[in-house]
Parts: sequence; C-alpha cells; structure tokens
Amino acid sequence: MPSEFDLIRRHFTSPIAHTALGVGDDAALLAPASGMQLAVTTDTLVAGTHFFADAAPQDLGWKTLAVNLSDLAAMGATPRWATLALTLPGVDEAWLTEFAAGFFECAGRYGVDVVGGDTTHGPLAMTVTAFGEVPAGAAITRDGGRSGDDLWVSGQPGLAVLGLAWLTDSALRAGANDYSPLRALHHPTPRVELGTALRGLAHAMIDVSDGLAGDLGHLCERSRLGATLEAGALPLAALRALGAGEVLARRCLLAGGDDYELLFAAPVAAREEIEAIARRLDLPLTRIGQLEAVAGPIRLREADGSVHEIAASGFDHFG
Amino acid sequence: MPSEFDLIRRHFTSPIAHTALGVGDDAALLAPASGMQLAVTTDTLVAGTHFFADAAPQDLGWKTLAVNLSDLAAMGATPRWATLALTLPGVDEAWLTEFAAGFFECAGRYGVDVVGGDTTHGPLAMTVTAFGEVPAGAAITRDGGRSGDDLWVSGQPGLAVLGLAWLTDSALRAGANDYSPLRALHHPTPRVELGTALRGLAHAMIDVSDGLAGDLGHLCERSRLGATLEAGALPLAALRALGAGEVLARRCLLAGGDDYELLFAAPVAAREEIEAIARRLDLPLTRIGQLEAVAGPIRLREADGSVHEIAASGFDHFG
Repeated sequence: MPSEFDLIRRHFTSPIAHTALGVGDDAALLAPASGMQLAVTTDTLVAGTHFFADAAPQDLGWKTLAVNLSDLAAMGATPRWATLALTLPGVDEAWLTEFAAGFFECAGRYGVDVVGGDTTHGPLAMTVTAFGEVPAGAAITRDGGRSGDDLWVSGQPGLAVLGLAWLTDSALRAGANDYSPLRALHHPTPRVELGTALRGLAHAMIDVSDGLAGDLGHLCERSRLGATLEAGALPLAALRALGAGEVLARRCLLAGGDDYELLFAAPVAAREEIEAIARRLDLPLTRIGQLEAVAGPIRLREADGSVHEIAASGFDHFG
Repeated sequence: MPSEFDLIRRHFTSPIAHTALGVGDDAALLAPASGMQLAVTTDTLVAGTHFFADAAPQDLGWKTLAVNLSDLAAMGATPRWATLALTLPGVDEAWLTEFAAGFFECAGRYGVDVVGGDTTHGPLAMTVTAFGEVPAGAAITRDGGRSGDDLWVSGQPGLAVLGLAWLTDSALRAGANDYSPLRALHHPTPRVELGTALRGLAHAMIDVSDGLAGDLGHLCERSRLGATLEAGALPLAALRALGAGEVLARRCLLAGGDDYELLFAAPVAAREEIEAIARRLDLPLTRIGQLEAVAGPIRLREADGSVHEIAASGFDHFG
C-alpha cells in the first residue's frame, strides 16, 4: 500500500505559478502582492452530510475547491492559493486519480496554486482553505448595504436543490430532458469574474450557499437593514420550465441551499454598468428587490401588491 | 438546538488583534507586514485515528492548534492567524465550551488571531490552517542542510509515544509517578520561540511529528545528504527514568510519532550561540549527530564504534 507521503506526492503535487515554496516542507511560503490584502476562507465537505459517499469523484474534487472560491468571489477577491486536507477511509487509487483531476481542473481554471495538504485516515471528508487577493480596502463585505440599494442575484439560484430533489424523488424529473439541476448540484461554477467585476460597484455581497432568503438575512443583519423582494422579478421561469410547480419553484429559489450564486446590493445609479457586466460575462443578473431602512424578516411583495414575511432561516446542518 | 451560526458565534468568535476583518463574512481579510512572507500549513486530527474520541476536550482544543503551530515553528515563522474547521457528530455544549477554551488558550499564548471557521455535521474531526510570518528569504526549510552540519533536537522526543504506550499497557507505567509522557501526548508545546531564534543559524529544520528517524529521513532526502546519529548522545536518560527499558526507550525516541520537538541542522561554528539559546529558553537542545555527504538510510554509531542502519520510515496513517 503506498504511504501517506507517496499519496500526497503522486496525486496532490502540481506545478506552482506564483508561490515561493509549495508542497513538501513543514509549511508553504507565499506573499500577496504589494497593496493587496488576503481574503481567507475555509469550508469542509463531509460524506453523508454534504454529498453522497458514491458521488462521482471528479465532480467532488471540483466542488470541494469551487465552494471555497465562491466565498472568495463574494468578497470581490481573486483566487490565488489553496490547501487541501483530505480524510480517506482507505486508499482507492482510481478514486484519488479522479478526485485530483477534478480538484486541479478547478484550480487551473481559476489560477489557484495548491500549496499544501494533509492526508489522514478516517471517514471521507475534505477541508479546503482558500486565499484570494483583493486591493486593500476594496473587499465587498456583507455590512456595506445602504437603504434604497437594488438587490441583485446572479444566474439561477434553486437549481442545485432541485437537482437534489430529483435524486430523492425521481418522479419530479419526469419529462425533464435537462441536466442543469444536476450539474448545478455536482459541478457548481464559482462566480469569480463577477465578484471582481463588482469591486467599486456593489456595496455589499454574499454567496447564496445557505439559500437566498437565509443569506439575504445575513446581509441585512450585518448591514442593519431590511429588504423587500418583488415576487414578479424573481427568476422562476427556468425552474418552472424544468417541471417545478409554483410552490416547489419558490421553495427552491428562496430556501434552497448549495447554490453558489452571488447576491449583492448596489446603488440604483449602477444599474447600467451592472447590466453591461452581465452582457460581458454572458451571465444573467436579475434585480429582485431592494434594501430598506425597516429591519426585520425579509418581505416578499406579490404581483397584487400584498406583502408578507418569509422565513430567513439559512441551511443549517444541525437544524 | 442552537443553529450552526449561533454555535460559531458563541464559541469561536474572539477578539482579533492584527486582522482587518475576522469571523462573520464570506472570508477574513488580513495582510502580512511589509517584507514578510506567509508560512501556511494545514493539519487534520480525526477521532479514532489521531486521538481517542473521549479525549479531554480542553487538551484536544489546545493540541489541534499546537500541532499546526509546530509546523510554523519548524519554518522559523511567527504564528499570526488560524482558521478552524470543526466537524461534530452533534451539539454538546459542555464539550464545545472546553474545546474552545483549550483552542483559544493556545491561540492566546502564541498571539494567533482566529480568523475563520466552518462547523459541519459528521464524524468528529478538526482541520486547522495556520499562518505565520517570516522575513522574506529567512524561512528555515528542510533542504538547506550541509555536509558536516551538527544535528540537534529540542526537548525530549519519545515522551508522547511513551504516554500512548502507557494508555494501552498500564503495566508499563508501574511505579512511574510522573505525568510528563501523558502531558506530551495530550498537551504538546510547539517550539515557537526556538524556531524564530534559529533564523540565520540553522541551515535546515523539521518538526518531529512523524518520529525522529523518519523526519530526519525527510530532511536528509530534501537536503540530498545522509546522517549518522551517535547512540551515546541520544537523550534517553529521561525515558529510562520513566521506566522504559533500553529497547523501548530507543524505539520511543527514534520511531515515536506525535512529538512536536524541532530537529535542525546547524554549522559547527554555531554551537555556542545555540547553547546560549537553550539556556535563554530553558529548553534542552541536544547535539545527536551530523549530516554527511553519503546519502542512504540513517546510520547509528554505538558506543563501541560499530555503525548500523536504522529504519527511517515515518509515522504513516495508511501504513
């Protein structure tokens, strides 16, 4: 059986592009460029909690890094480095080869040097810590929202949880010849280019990994504001076209977890620039509501003008 | 049951001293001082592999961070920041309170800002990523050893594995009224002050977490050198005094894992300065052998002048 050191060397050593010292010593050595701050985030995926143990390893490798890059994107940071701590129940070379292929595909796509790792024996789980660069003072935090700001969301939130619903109830999928929900679940795209494009435009930003309503709740809490969403503006059409009824479509969009879209607040004056970014990135950006001085639960205004409150509880592993 | 967000907030938010933005956003923001590189390391501890599930949580919290700070010390870096990813089978408030107390005790002792975390549901495990600062070019890597360098080791390697042997065979402990092996196992001291004191003196350094012989093998491999240890110079007296016979004492010292002492190579001309550091830090530093141009397995010279090779295999979770 190959040793831990062989494992690390064989599967998790790849060329580094902008790092003084990579894998193989007690620590890696790196430095952000002059004038840059480091954005640092860490996320763990555990078999049985965040993914099925039989998930395709290449997708899993991609997703392990992608969910962390999404957090960097939500700060407006450019991904640069990552470490991977991998806990394995045993050595399965085929699995490792595919996992590493997916992980390094994502690293290569977004210019990330993999600078460290730890391989341990135990129940399948992986923890990534990712580092991005952002000009000092330019990070887009959650607490900068202002009353009257537009609320925007990228792409199609709700797809991933619809994919999960398909996996647990195949009847929901009847007639839908479209894999986009499964792809969103297994192979999410971190909105890295959008995150950096919004520097200087967005006042506040968060990634929608705990569900849109829950994450909007976090943004509002940190910005000490409230929010009203416009039901007629919500991007529900794609979910409906995939066979989701109105109730399921809304639940997926507002309460679904595991999406990695960006939710951001920006001034009304920035609308044209934001729409230009959407065209340039070929990524839908939808204006779904606004921040308001009245705090409290997230409000939803229906087409008939009636307003009701919606639960802002995020996805919670212990809930 | 408290939510994941409450958990993080209640137990793992503490004041930050040198960080632009700490826990509570998508990512933390930090920057090394001008002219400094970041040393980055990551280590996972898994219940059943690295510790007993019923380990005292306060010790476990301390050790979780300490083993990472040991890696920074082995680079000559000053610890500055850390993230903690904690996977829990459920919410046990008493356990969490004690774990956090131990973790933050270690953070406070070594000036570490805890800047991020993730709490997930699953089998008990924790991954820390730790960041230290070191002046650009001053890090002490594994590959700088030179033929003729003295080999030094700090403290008493072998204590931790002797403590582990006591736990699995209580007969070994008969008559030993000394808790130092159990303390070394449960509450290791990262040699942070020693690591930074050796900048500019040591040519190469590694921490002895995989066993002295194994880690010396790594240092030799990276430095493309060999090594001979002097049996008469090995710090065995303390292990003998704790009741270990000659065979067990040698095995603990040379092949024991989970020690967090520093092993380093330094020129003969640095002996006086190194001995002065030992006195200043009140930490034994023992000269145990030398690096040599002849590569190959680690050699051990007995008191009678005979030389034999010793296995350099490190501690391996998959071995």
